[in-house]
Amino acid sequence: MSKLITPRNENYSEWYLDIIKHAGLAEHSAVKGCMVIKPYGYAIWEKMRDDLDRRFKETGHENAYFPLFIPKSLFEAEEKNAEGFAKECAVVTHYRLKNHPTEKGKLIADPDSRLEEELIVRPTSEAVIWNTYKNWIQSYRDLPLLINQWANVVRWEMRTRLFLRTAEFLWQEGHTAHATAEEAMQETRQMLEVYADFAEKVLAIPVIKGIKTENERFAGADETFCIEAMMQDGKALQAGTSHFLGQNFAKAFDVKFLNKENKLEYVWGTSWGVSTRLMGALIMSHSDDSGLVLPPKVAPIQVVIVPIYKGEESFARLNEACDNIAKSLKKQGISVKLDFRETQTPGFKFAEWEVKGVPIRLALGLRDLENQTIEVARRDTKNKTTIPLQDVEGYVSNLLEQIQQSIYQKALEFREKNTFEVNTYEEFKEVMEKGGFALAHWDGTTETELKIKEETKATIRCIPLNARKETGKCIYTGKPSSQRVIFAQAY
Amino acid sequence: MSKLITPRNENYSEWYLDIIKHAGLAEHSAVKGCMVIKPYGYAIWEKMRDDLDRRFKETGHENAYFPLFIPKSLFEAEEKNAEGFAKECAVVTHYRLKNHPTEKGKLIADPDSRLEEELIVRPTSEAVIWNTYKNWIQSYRDLPLLINQWANVVRWEMRTRLFLRTAEFLWQEGHTAHATAEEAMQETRQMLEVYADFAEKVLAIPVIKGIKTENERFAGADETFCIEAMMQDGKALQAGTSHFLGQNFAKAFDVKFLNKENKLEYVWGTSWGVSTRLMGALIMSHSDDSGLVLPPKVAPIQVVIVPIYKGEESFARLNEACDNIAKSLKKQGISVKLDFRETQTPGFKFAEWEVKGVPIRLALGLRDLENQTIEVARRDTKNKTTIPLQDVEGYVSNLLEQIQQSIYQKALEFREKNTFEVNTYEEFKEVMEKGGFALAHWDGTTETELKIKEETKATIRCIPLNARKETGKCIYTGKPSSQRVIFAQAY
Repeated sequence: MSKLITPRNENYSEWYLDIIKHAGLAEHSAVKGCMVIKPYGYAIWEKMRDDLDRRFKETGHENAYFPLFIPKSLFEAEEKNAEGFAKECAVVTHYRLKNHPTEKGKLIADPDSRLEEELIVRPTSEAVIWNTYKNWIQSYRDLPLLINQWANVVRWEMRTRLFLRTAEFLWQEGHTAHATAEEAMQETRQMLEVYADFAEKVLAIPVIKGIKTENERFAGADETFCIEAMMQDGKALQAGTSHFLGQNFAKAFDVKFLNKENKLEYVWGTSWGVSTRLMGALIMSHSDDSGLVLPPKVAPIQVVIVPIYKGEESFARLNEACDNIAKSLKKQGISVKLDFRETQTPGFKFAEWEVKGVPIRLALGLRDLENQTIEVARRDTKNKTTIPLQDVEGYVSNLLEQIQQSIYQKALEFREKNTFEVNTYEEFKEVMEKGGFALAHWDGTTETELKIKEETKATIRCIPLNARKETGKCIYTGKPSSQRVIFAQAY
Repeated sequence: MSKLITPRNENYSEWYLDIIKHAGLAEHSAVKGCMVIKPYGYAIWEKMRDDLDRRFKETGHENAYFPLFIPKSLFEAEEKNAEGFAKECAVVTHYRLKNHPTEKGKLIADPDSRLEEELIVRPTSEAVIWNTYKNWIQSYRDLPLLINQWANVVRWEMRTRLFLRTAEFLWQEGHTAHATAEEAMQETRQMLEVYADFAEKVLAIPVIKGIKTENERFAGADETFCIEAMMQDGKALQAGTSHFLGQNFAKAFDVKFLNKENKLEYVWGTSWGVSTRLMGALIMSHSDDSGLVLPPKVAPIQVVIVPIYKGEESFARLNEACDNIAKSLKKQGISVKLDFRETQTPGFKFAEWEVKGVPIRLALGLRDLENQTIEVARRDTKNKTTIPLQDVEGYVSNLLEQIQQSIYQKALEFREKNTFEVNTYEEFKEVMEKGGFALAHWDGTTETELKIKEETKATIRCIPLNARKETGKCIYTGKPSSQRVIFAQAY
C-alpha cells in the first residue's frame, strides 16, 4: 500500500496528494474547487475542533450561528474588507428553479425569482456579525462580547489544492467587541497564544508568532497577528490569524456604546480564525514516504491491535486476548481499534494502518501469547520492540506521550535546520532556491517587499514577536532596519 | 421580565416569539428568512447535537463533509427529488463582484464571472452524496456505508418563523448505502428508533412513530418514517424523518455493486435527518407563560445559584458558601452558574433565569447560612422548598432526574388529553377546531386526504406503527379502512 505514495524527494506535491488519497482524508468533488472530507479526515478535524472549542470556552467565549448569506449592501459597508473579498465571491441571484422551456427533465433559474438584492455566500462574517452587534451593544455593560462561530465559508479560488486552498472550507471565526483598544488588543494577542499553544501541544507543529506586514494584513484590520509553520519542503504555511480590527467595523456598521461616563463611543473589535487548512499543515509537517504520521492527540485511532492468526483454532484465543488489551487501554481513555478482519493478511493490515498514521500498532501471535509478550511498533520512528504483556497498559500510555513530544521535536529541529540568517540578497536568493526560512533585514516598505516577491516569490511571513532587536541593513535596498523579519515562499 | 411574555391563551404565536426573544435564543437577521442563533440558543442546540452524535456513532455511523453546492445537472438527476425542491432553491450564478460602473463604493456581480453551470445551495444532499458514493462503492465489501453529516441547508421559504421554518437551517443528514432492501429498511427503522428515544429521553417530548402517506413522503423516497409531536396548541410538529430510498438514488446516479455472486446490483439507500426545528418543538412542548422550561438534559445551565446579599460584609461569606456548593455540584457533572452580579437585584436575577428556563434555582441568604439551609426552586412546577445545606448535592441530583421525568409526563398527559378517536366527519371537524390529534379511519386515497386538508387544514401526520388493527369506515367517504391514522393541523 505504501508503495502507492510518491516519495517526497521525487515530487513533493504528488506526495501530499497521495497521502490524502491513500489515508482516505479527502477528495475533489463534482463541484469545481470544493472537496469532500472523508470520514477519516473528518474524524481528525473533529479532534482539532473539540480541542479548540474547549480552549475558546475556557477563555470565556460562547458559540453562536450567523447567516450563510450576506446582502450585497452589507457586504459593501466596510470598504477595504469588501474590496479584499469581492474578487472571489459566490453570488446568489435567484431563489427558484423552473422547468426548462424545451428540454424535459432540465431546470433553469426562474427569471421571475431574481432577487432584488444579490446575496454573497460569506467569505468571512464580519459584515453580517457587526451588523447584528449593532443591536446587541448599547452600553459598556454589554461589553466585552465574546463570540465564536463554527461554519463553512466560500472563497472562489481558481487554483485549488485539497485542504490548503478550496472554494468552500470549514473554519471557526471568533468575533469580539470591546470597550477599549487595550482590551481588544489583549484579546487579539490572547487568541494568538491559544492558537500557538494548540498548534504546538496538540498538532505538534512548532510555530512562529508574529505580525503581518501592511501588505499581508487582513482586509479591514488595523493589525494582523499570525502563527507561521514550516512544511517539509521548506515553505511556510500560515496556520492561524488573529486580527485587531480597531474601530473599522464599528464605524462601518455604526456600533456605538455608552461608556461609564455616559458618552457614546465606537466599539473596538477583533476577529480570529483557523480552518481546515490546518489539516494540510498537519499532513505536511509530520508525514513520511510511507504515509500519514499523526500526533496521538489528534489521531482518531491511537492504537491498533492486530492479531496474527495461525489456523482456525487460534482465532478465539487471540481475539479474546486482544479484546482484553483493548478494554484496559480504553479505560485509560485511549482510542483503540481492534482489527479482527479475517479477510485480510496481517501484512495488508500493517500497511493500511501505517498509511493512515495510527501512532502505535500492537501485534499479538500465538507464540507471544505463550510467552506472555506483545509486539509494539511506533509509526513515527518505525521502531519495533517486544514487551511483557502485563506491562502493555503503562507502556502504551507513556509511549503515546513520548510520540507526541518526539514528533514535535523532530519538526522543530527540521525548522531550525532550515532557517538561515542572511545578510545579502545573494545569500537570500540561495535560501529561497533550496527552500527554508530566511531571517533578513528589510527596510519596512511595501515597495521593497513587493519587489522581492516579484523576483523570488518570497513573501514576508511575519515580523516575529519576541525576537531580539538588532540593527542592520535591508538586504534589498541597504536602508536601515531594526529587526530581522521572516521571508519564505508560502502556501 | 416574565411580564414581557404574551400569555399562551391570548396569542400563542406571540407567546412563542416572546420566549425566543426574552430567553435570548434567536432573532431574525438582515437576510430575509435567515436567523441568527444566539449563544444561549446555540448552547441548547450543541447539547442536542452532542447527544445525537454519540448515538449515531454508537450505531456505527461516521461523520463526513460534502460540498455546500450542487451543480444543476446533478440536482436534476433524481427527478422527483429535483421537482420537490426546485421551487425553493438558492441559485449561485456568478463568482465575482466588481465595482459598479458609476456608483462609487457599490459592487455588482461581474458579468464576466457568470458560471457555465449554475450551482444550487444544497436543500438536502442526496444528489451530491450519491454522486460521490458511485466512486466509493464497487463491491459488497464496501457496504454498508454508514455516513452522517452536520451541515447548513437552504430552502427558500416565503413565510418564515424562527426555528420552525427558516430559509437556512442547521441539521444532520444521514446517508447510508446497503446491499439489500431488508438491511436498508432495518437501518431506516433503527434511525427512527434513535430519534424517538432521543426525543423522549433527552428532549422529554413524547412522539408517535409512524409512516407518512404517499402525499407527505420525502421527494425521492419509497417510504418515509417520522416521529410526530403535539405542541401546546394541539398542533402537530414533525420532529424527525427517516427515509427508505429504495434504489431510486442508486439508479439516478448509477451506483452499483458486485454482490457475493459476482453480479452487479443497484445499491439500496436510506437518509434521515433532524434539524434546528427541534428547538421549536422543545420550546413549544414545555414552556409556560413565564418563559422557557428546559428538560435538564439539554439545559446549558442546570442549576443557578443566587446569593441574597445583605450589606457589604455578606458578599464574601455568601460568595464563598455558594462557590463551595457549585464545586460539589460540578463534581457530579452538573452544570452550574453562579450569579454573583452585584449590579442586579435577586428579583431581577430570579426573573432572568426563570425566562431562560434554568431547571433549578438555589438561593442562599445570611439567615440560611446561619441555619445551614438553602432554598431550592423548581422551574417547571415553580415549587419552592428549603432543605438542609448538607443535603444539597444528593437533593439536586435527584431533583434533576425527577424534573426530566416530570416534564415528559406532563407533555404525555397533555397529548393524551388532546387526542380523540373520532368516527364521523362532524366529530372530526370539532377536534380540528379546538385543536388536537384526531384518530380516524381513512380510505387510503390521496384524493380524500387532499379534500380533508382543503376543508379543514388538517393533514395525515402519520399512519402510526404499533397501532392496533381495527376495521372501520373512512370518516369522509365511508369506504372501508383497516387502521386509524392521525390527523392534525401541523407546523
